[in-house]
Amino acid sequence: MTKPEIEPGTAGCEVTFQPLGRRIVVTAGTTLLEAGRRAGLLLCGGCGGVGICGRCRVSVSSGNMFPPDEEERDFLAAGSYSPGTRLACEARVASSVTVEAPLSSFPSGQRLQVEGDVAVTAHDPIVKAYQLQLCPPSLDDSRSDYRRVADALDAVAGHTDWEMLPGAASCFSSLARKGRWDLNAYTRRQQVIGFANCGMNPVGVAVDVGCTKIAVYLVDLCTGAELAASGTPNPQIPYGEDLISRLVYAAASTEKAKSLAVMVRECILQVCAKLCDSSHIIKEQIADICVVGNTAMMHLLLNLPVAQLLSAPFVASIDRDVDIPASDLGWQFAPGAQVHVLPSIGGFVGADHVAMIMARNIDRCEKLTVGLDIGTNTEIVVRDPGTGSFLTTSVPSGPVFEGGHVSHGMRAASGAIEKVYSLNGNLRYTTIDGTKPIGICGSGTVDLLAELRRIRCVDERGHLSKTHALVESGRSGARFLVAPAADTGHGRDIVLTQQDITQVQLAKAAIFAGIETLLQLTGVSPDDVQQLVVAGAFGSYLDLRSAVSIGMLPRFQNAEYLQVGNAAGAGAKLALVSKSERERARKIAEKAKRIELKQYAIFDRSMARATRFPELRSLISHAASQLPVSVQDEARSGSD
Amino acid sequence: MTKPEIEPGTAGCEVTFQPLGRRIVVTAGTTLLEAGRRAGLLLCGGCGGVGICGRCRVSVSSGNMFPPDEEERDFLAAGSYSPGTRLACEARVASSVTVEAPLSSFPSGQRLQVEGDVAVTAHDPIVKAYQLQLCPPSLDDSRSDYRRVADALDAVAGHTDWEMLPGAASCFSSLARKGRWDLNAYTRRQQVIGFANCGMNPVGVAVDVGCTKIAVYLVDLCTGAELAASGTPNPQIPYGEDLISRLVYAAASTEKAKSLAVMVRECILQVCAKLCDSSHIIKEQIADICVVGNTAMMHLLLNLPVAQLLSAPFVASIDRDVDIPASDLGWQFAPGAQVHVLPSIGGFVGADHVAMIMARNIDRCEKLTVGLDIGTNTEIVVRDPGTGSFLTTSVPSGPVFEGGHVSHGMRAASGAIEKVYSLNGNLRYTTIDGTKPIGICGSGTVDLLAELRRIRCVDERGHLSKTHALVESGRSGARFLVAPAADTGHGRDIVLTQQDITQVQLAKAAIFAGIETLLQLTGVSPDDVQQLVVAGAFGSYLDLRSAVSIGMLPRFQNAEYLQVGNAAGAGAKLALVSKSERERARKIAEKAKRIELKQYAIFDRSMARATRFPELRSLISHAASQLPVSVQDEARSGSD
Repeated sequence: MTKPEIEPGTAGCEVTFQPLGRRIVVTAGTTLLEAGRRAGLLLCGGCGGVGICGRCRVSVSSGNMFPPDEEERDFLAAGSYSPGTRLACEARVASSVTVEAPLSSFPSGQRLQVEGDVAVTAHDPIVKAYQLQLCPPSLDDSRSDYRRVADALDAVAGHTDWEMLPGAASCFSSLARKGRWDLNAYTRRQQVIGFANCGMNPVGVAVDVGCTKIAVYLVDLCTGAELAASGTPNPQIPYGEDLISRLVYAAASTEKAKSLAVMVRECILQVCAKLCDSSHIIKEQIADICVVGNTAMMHLLLNLPVAQLLSAPFVASIDRDVDIPASDLGWQFAPGAQVHVLPSIGGFVGADHVAMIMARNIDRCEKLTVGLDIGTNTEIVVRDPGTGSFLTTSVPSGPVFEGGHVSHGMRAASGAIEKVYSLNGNLRYTTIDGTKPIGICGSGTVDLLAELRRIRCVDERGHLSKTHALVESGRSGARFLVAPAADTGHGRDIVLTQQDITQVQLAKAAIFAGIETLLQLTGVSPDDVQQLVVAGAFGSYLDLRSAVSIGMLPRFQNAEYLQVGNAAGAGAKLALVSKSERERARKIAEKAKRIELKQYAIFDRSMARATRFPELRSLISHAASQLPVSVQDEARSGSD
Repeated sequence: MTKPEIEPGTAGCEVTFQPLGRRIVVTAGTTLLEAGRRAGLLLCGGCGGVGICGRCRVSVSSGNMFPPDEEERDFLAAGSYSPGTRLACEARVASSVTVEAPLSSFPSGQRLQVEGDVAVTAHDPIVKAYQLQLCPPSLDDSRSDYRRVADALDAVAGHTDWEMLPGAASCFSSLARKGRWDLNAYTRRQQVIGFANCGMNPVGVAVDVGCTKIAVYLVDLCTGAELAASGTPNPQIPYGEDLISRLVYAAASTEKAKSLAVMVRECILQVCAKLCDSSHIIKEQIADICVVGNTAMMHLLLNLPVAQLLSAPFVASIDRDVDIPASDLGWQFAPGAQVHVLPSIGGFVGADHVAMIMARNIDRCEKLTVGLDIGTNTEIVVRDPGTGSFLTTSVPSGPVFEGGHVSHGMRAASGAIEKVYSLNGNLRYTTIDGTKPIGICGSGTVDLLAELRRIRCVDERGHLSKTHALVESGRSGARFLVAPAADTGHGRDIVLTQQDITQVQLAKAAIFAGIETLLQLTGVSPDDVQQLVVAGAFGSYLDLRSAVSIGMLPRFQNAEYLQVGNAAGAGAKLALVSKSERERARKIAEKAKRIELKQYAIFDRSMARATRFPELRSLISHAASQLPVSVQDEARSGSD
């Protein structure tokens, strides 16, 4: 066993995919699957890049690759392939290369977007705009402003009996009396909610309030086009890294609850202002807002009571969708701008999960699907289109995957070790922004444990091998040296302790057992699962092969694994531009049944089994390293 | 011509009405009509006490009365009556008296309330309360608060698909988690808008925002019972006595407009708080608010644009009914409390006029009706049930009747001369609160001019007789000495100048011409009018005989004249307790047509004629005074 070379590097390699001719520059050590993903090509075979199916075969026609490891060789040995054939999910580039990836080489055909089967919806926003050409009042025509507008709308909108909000009346008067009698009226159902100059379309805002990150999207409500998007850290973080801490803070007093609400409302408002600036939109154009988020975040945003979320049976205050004036949240947009908060399923299975189900078509899909959003709480859905069974749950997976409860854990920010892999028996890592490491984020922790298992430095029960060169015994138990002080950004060792591993085991076991329990309650076997969807920010950076190999996700023989990014935000955008999608979200919330896992003994048993690591499939290859291995990931920065 | 004895007095006389046995104490000089009114008996005959029909005959069986004047004697001479027969509208008490007033002596039968034919409505408030008996959550029943409430409402309310406002959810949680799982849910349509302990009914607030006075009524929404009522001066008065001045102030800047809005909103809130205290209501019980007022007041309350109300063609911003959350006006009542502002007809014909029409059933009545609310602007309605013609208008009658534009004019407050009458050729007056006079309010001004005409001190063109003992010539023209400095509260003469009279002529002519024009446009003659309704605070203190004799109101031979008090407030209360009345108000606003008088030459011609005073019917009686004549009105105080 050689000492792993763990240091960041900078070499760049151009990968060209033929026959499409797509090109992308990546760092040495990147898999072809990952390079393809960045180029907009989904190269995974049947399994989604989890290393299960062995079908993501491509042919490297020029350039140098790292040699295949034992696992890849096992797959390739099982068929008779031309020289240069590699598995995209395993093969790592060592120089600029050209890859043959014909459409026909993939069972489901070539797909050209990362997001996969995002639901497509009829464009039918609740807020509409009508261009009106009005005459100014005269002695012969002394209709009120309201009547003048209502009569004009009657003619163009095909219905009558309009209401006009006082704020909209003021807006109308100030525009019209500057001589602008041709203008755009914004309406919601039969309510006139605002006015703008001709050509200024109403704009919608979709918001996904995550525990750590808030994603905001501006959408033109007339065209459905996304105008701008931005993410920002949740300003509540200082009041609790995880949602339970924040709920405890909010439950302490109405003032504290209110302060957390105001904090996140103002943050969203600021992001909107920034996006408006960059898109040349005025805030009075914002006429509709759709918000999703987990149950805790929605309760805090709406300033709903939270104490009851902190003790069994963990009931939500409101789980139905909520419509309130934007001004109630302190947002001064178009006079009648409304906020629509999507419904939640119950308990901690929140609106973000409903949005994810909607965006990924899980409620309509013909495949038996497992969907999950991994975080402090991991929400899981299992839907069987055959029987109509539609179960959801939320497991408390803890903050491990967000950098909490791990000695050198950190959020996915600059300097975090985010990927760990082995080449020729040596462990290597990449950091966000390519800087010297200062800690390990969730995806790095999962990778690290997967590799430690491969090199047998950790056994099935999670015990560190005391005999490994990089394992030392400290006062508080054994620990693995990930990066020595000399290599780190802060001049201190970065280690993974025995306790850290125990925390990961508990977290990954909760997720695994949650999935297993829902499948049992659905009455299907793991082999029946046809699709596993991993949503959310952490989920999209997670190496699914690592997740499967440490037993965080089950190894479904017949499933396609999909990483779908911020599906919750995509769902919020759907609801923003379509009335029927809001109705659909309500139906999802009604039909999906929330399972309280604590009530099932099978969950406890599954959890106990799942804390162990799965058996190893193969030993790590011991072939010698031939190329620089310290790599840098150019696609991700700490500000993501 | 003797010098009029004009000084306040205090003598009290008990008037007993038989066979009903009603008793009331009044001051000497009070007419039997007025005494009856205060005792709850409407003693007027066919005309409503205007001195036209001569049918309000009663028999005085004991006690002393002032002798009949010439007008009364003329009427009595036309029939053959037993001794002691008097006209209730003319005869004034001189001591305690007993009056025979059998029900049969009145054409329309005895009516027992002052307000007359107030519309009665089905009790069907938009806000309802449901008593719920809930179980607390448990592991077997982890429904959300919302779902728990919605399920219970489904069972008792007969419909489903409830919404719950975030504020209501907080309210529920705080009640329920104090152990009160049996509670009252307040709903508006399918929205859950608040909660209260069992037995605490939702309460509605009806508000009539007048230019000078704001009237507020608390109503139990479950029973329809009025719980409390109060009036308070409009706090905007310092920013303009009349509504035009206030509109000018508000039009100057958005800050000024906002400040007027906040002023009146806070005033209403304070009155509500006071009424809640006195009725043992908590403010969270207030769940619905209905507001009426003239167009200007409603624009200021809602902070609607007003500049366009200040120049032709004087268009309203919104004339439809408006529904907005109470919190938008800064009113924190039940979480989902809403404000409903009744619709207006257009221009200055506002929601108060619609409410008056509704409360007095003018839209449904079988009689050809003229209705008016006299103020700075006087709104007039003429409805002909035969043809369905339904015309309204607003005439700028100026502030004369509210004490403005008259040298010693004042608001109806303590020390105002409010009634003037002649006994035996001497002018007498009463003041509000019986104090020494400090000015003349509107009703006093009308009375004074009527009496000055009677004593021929003013001619048909309005010129003061230079030869009258009490008329003196000042630098700015002739003036009549109403009260010498020695008799007044401030030690200065109180006079009525020639210019004052001109102002009254213009004001009364505008009202008269407005009525006449609407009648002409309706295509009916004055003799067709069956009912004249005078609403509003000023209208209820106005002496209708004086108003007719100065030509402010036409002399309709076949009409009943009714003074109906705050009919606008009564209309607001109807809309508060009945959804269908809100619908009816909207229909009134749609059906009634607003006439812009400036567009009709007949209005100008009528106005020119009506500035003259009508010819005198008879000379004043010269019989000697026999009793103390300075009187005090105990029924009215300056705080009214």
